[in-house]
Amino acid sequence: MTTRHFLSTQDWSRADLDALLAQAAAFKRTKAGRELAGKSIALLFFNPSMRTRTSFELGAFQLGGHAIVLAPGKDAWPIEFDVGAVMDGEAEEHVAEVARVLSRYVDLIGVRAFPKFQDWSVDREDRVIRTFAKYATVPVINMETITHPMQELAHILALQQHFGTSDLRGRKYVLTWTYHPKPLNTAVANSALQIATRYGMDVTLLCPTPDYVLDTRYMDFARANVAENGGSLSVSHDPDSAYRGAHVVYAKSWGALPYFGRWADEKPIRDAHKHFIVDERKMALTDGGVFSHCLPLRRNVKATDAVMDSPACIAIDEAENRLHVQKAVMAKLAS
Amino acid sequence: MTTRHFLSTQDWSRADLDALLAQAAAFKRTKAGRELAGKSIALLFFNPSMRTRTSFELGAFQLGGHAIVLAPGKDAWPIEFDVGAVMDGEAEEHVAEVARVLSRYVDLIGVRAFPKFQDWSVDREDRVIRTFAKYATVPVINMETITHPMQELAHILALQQHFGTSDLRGRKYVLTWTYHPKPLNTAVANSALQIATRYGMDVTLLCPTPDYVLDTRYMDFARANVAENGGSLSVSHDPDSAYRGAHVVYAKSWGALPYFGRWADEKPIRDAHKHFIVDERKMALTDGGVFSHCLPLRRNVKATDAVMDSPACIAIDEAENRLHVQKAVMAKLAS
Amino acid sequence: MTTRHFLSTQDWSRADLDALLAQAAAFKRTKAGRELAGKSIALLFFNPSMRTRTSFELGAFQLGGHAIVLAPGKDAWPIEFDVGAVMDGEAEEHVAEVARVLSRYVDLIGVRAFPKFQDWSVDREDRVIRTFAKYATVPVINMETITHPMQELAHILALQQHFGTSDLRGRKYVLTWTYHPKPLNTAVANSALQIATRYGMDVTLLCPTPDYVLDTRYMDFARANVAENGGSLSVSHDPDSAYRGAHVVYAKSWGALPYFGRWADEKPIRDAHKHFIVDERKMALTDGGVFSHCLPLRRNVKATDAVMDSPACIAIDEAENRLHVQKAVMAKLAS
Repeated sequence: MTTRHFLSTQDWSRADLDALLAQAAAFKRTKAGRELAGKSIALLFFNPSMRTRTSFELGAFQLGGHAIVLAPGKDAWPIEFDVGAVMDGEAEEHVAEVARVLSRYVDLIGVRAFPKFQDWSVDREDRVIRTFAKYATVPVINMETITHPMQELAHILALQQHFGTSDLRGRKYVLTWTYHPKPLNTAVANSALQIATRYGMDVTLLCPTPDYVLDTRYMDFARANVAENGGSLSVSHDPDSAYRGAHVVYAKSWGALPYFGRWADEKPIRDAHKHFIVDERKMALTDGGVFSHCLPLRRNVKATDAVMDSPACIAIDEAENRLHVQKAVMAKLAS
Repeated sequence: MTTRHFLSTQDWSRADLDALLAQAAAFKRTKAGRELAGKSIALLFFNPSMRTRTSFELGAFQLGGHAIVLAPGKDAWPIEFDVGAVMDGEAEEHVAEVARVLSRYVDLIGVRAFPKFQDWSVDREDRVIRTFAKYATVPVINMETITHPMQELAHILALQQHFGTSDLRGRKYVLTWTYHPKPLNTAVANSALQIATRYGMDVTLLCPTPDYVLDTRYMDFARANVAENGGSLSVSHDPDSAYRGAHVVYAKSWGALPYFGRWADEKPIRDAHKHFIVDERKMALTDGGVFSHCLPLRRNVKATDAVMDSPACIAIDEAENRLHVQKAVMAKLAS
Repeated sequence: MTTRHFLSTQDWSRADLDALLAQAAAFKRTKAGRELAGKSIALLFFNPSMRTRTSFELGAFQLGGHAIVLAPGKDAWPIEFDVGAVMDGEAEEHVAEVARVLSRYVDLIGVRAFPKFQDWSVDREDRVIRTFAKYATVPVINMETITHPMQELAHILALQQHFGTSDLRGRKYVLTWTYHPKPLNTAVANSALQIATRYGMDVTLLCPTPDYVLDTRYMDFARANVAENGGSLSVSHDPDSAYRGAHVVYAKSWGALPYFGRWADEKPIRDAHKHFIVDERKMALTDGGVFSHCLPLRRNVKATDAVMDSPACIAIDEAENRLHVQKAVMAKLAS
């Protein structure tokens, strides 16, 4: 029997995801439980975190369990991920040992590992979490690598609760690129694309130029999702037409894939699209649409104060849902 | 209904403070409780901590709760505190989101944020904790900013237990500046000034020169406290006369307010007052007085080994009391 | 009554160690317990950790207790260890206060403090943990300083379970130096030497040159152990003869004591002994011997992939045992 990990929502059936969302909604009503009594999860952060750290640690506690937070390379030893490597560099131990030892200690392992931003053909292999999943004998949970499945579940739950229905089909959904001074991870964009199509919405990917279209793996997932669940997928570079009539605006900044490793060349394009900011004028074009974002968000750069502080913003609800969906995922995987 | 925070003892009545001290004394006798069962507190450390971190985390555990420790800018994202800021600098998210999201997760938020030491007119606004308190919908606790209210309660409890009475009126109390190679926060000095006058003691603020007198806000609080509770307030620059007949010597080093941002100019004055060290000769001038300090303390710089290791030193008792008073505060605010 | 610490296995009787190993084996069968209900341990890490941190924190949780993790100099104040020091340097507080205050808060204190590698005559005094033990009024546990007693117990338990008997006498045991690009701590080597002789095995210390022989204190302990428990002790610089017929190969890299503070002079010797790597050819010389290592381990530098991934490697079992033996030690010391 192979260990069941949670690396991507695409590995799980709609029925599985629906059951997790129902359990999350139940946890939202009654926070205490014993589903993880005496159990534990190791949370490995190769990158910073506020919501993920807090919600996983708290979720484990609320279910009777315990989370152990490790930062390899900072408070724990730096790790090698290449199979067969002659380890004469910085890394003091190999993921084979880390994953195997942690599997002896804990019941679950969460991993956050962002791309290196030098070579997308390398980053897209998602090597850190894939090697953890290979060697671990307990379930591994993706806490954001090149996708962010926990955010996906929290996002869908927020939309379902906002619209008062679990059926999101027919909703016009805009995933918009926004400006950020640095090229960021495409993870949440990939995730939004796949989960919005998974739930049958009519999805527009709005981005500055064709270079900002997402990796073919995720575009293909989205198209397959449309084929299976209905809805639609289109790409737009025109904010006004994309926003018009939208029911959901989900924003994220990301670096264009063709520019990995030569970000100076991307900067002028990025800088020329600061007007992609989510503001009141664009939101007024929507059909009373809601706005959300995974957070952290730079105010007045990615979205204006007016949008963030408006009733249309459900980003705080979505952030809260991280706690509930992660409890559902941990309870499921540790059962 | 507005959320009740614990930002300053001055915001709380004497009856409230007395009740908290009584509860703390009860917790000192029986450490276990269920007052925070299933509840949680986020502890945000913008600066280092040993006692505060340990005592809050342990206090939550001993009452059935759980503390989550976050270090924004290190393991969590750097935070913006200016309302309306265009966030194109270092900060990745705004306190508005951090405080709102944490309020969805936890029942209490503790914040430690020291001054920047560049401009006292800015630092005295205590912006970090004030903005957390503004946006949070759960109680915010001051874990030291420009005052240190938890230390105040621990200090008073230590004095009450040392003297065997909750009534401290009539005690001669010296708050003495001591040398430290760096200009430090005035927080504990401000706190000592306000709590010692609050409990009706005869307080002398002993410091090198008039430049070391504390901010008018705290001097005014102290005078108002004297008016309300009896006792007295005076300022002295002469160690021997200040120590003479004292029942309590409380030491702290701090940077002179007029020198914020130009500390090189303050250094010669500071260096000329190394003799303010608390030593046996000065302690011998007191009326069998006790010595205390908030810790950390540089031995043989702020106080001599002989004083620190003498029976008159109650700094360890005061440090222990941090645990008990914080449990009382958390239990009160989370109830 | 003096406080009983766990600084070295040499301070504990064989009967004590055997009882701890029996308790650890019991904890390995049933992980949950209440031996630390409501109790707490402070874990002070002056150096990084993955296994130690995870296994102590988890062990405390599984027994109903709570671990507080502190990193002095990073998230907590830097500490002074010299008695009588005029503290005008970097350290903000003295171990006298840290140990006394923590003793008021928690029931146990764990300390990890590696050598400074500048002067072995200083490092061998093990000042950090010795001063903690001096001032603490609760038991102090060595989480690796210049020995690593928790690893010793985990190692012996792994051997006992591998061989299916608690009696290890008559086993041929090789402690082999291996190459590592940096000069490392002798702690685990010292520990292996003393615990292997303590359990009556026939021990060979295999190292590049006489300069790599361990400190006389540990060589003397080993000889005294042989005198008391039977077995034998020899030193070899020839891998093939040392491996021949071995039942246990335990590997560790360390820096040669005479080269402390002038490591550039040691480098050529170290580099000339890369062939000390544990590989299949050498393992084939053993009598079906098992291989272990304390981890972290650099693959293909200290040991080959083939050895690490072979059934003969019990390093993961040994790592798992850290959890069980530490629970036994904490339960014993806190009772």
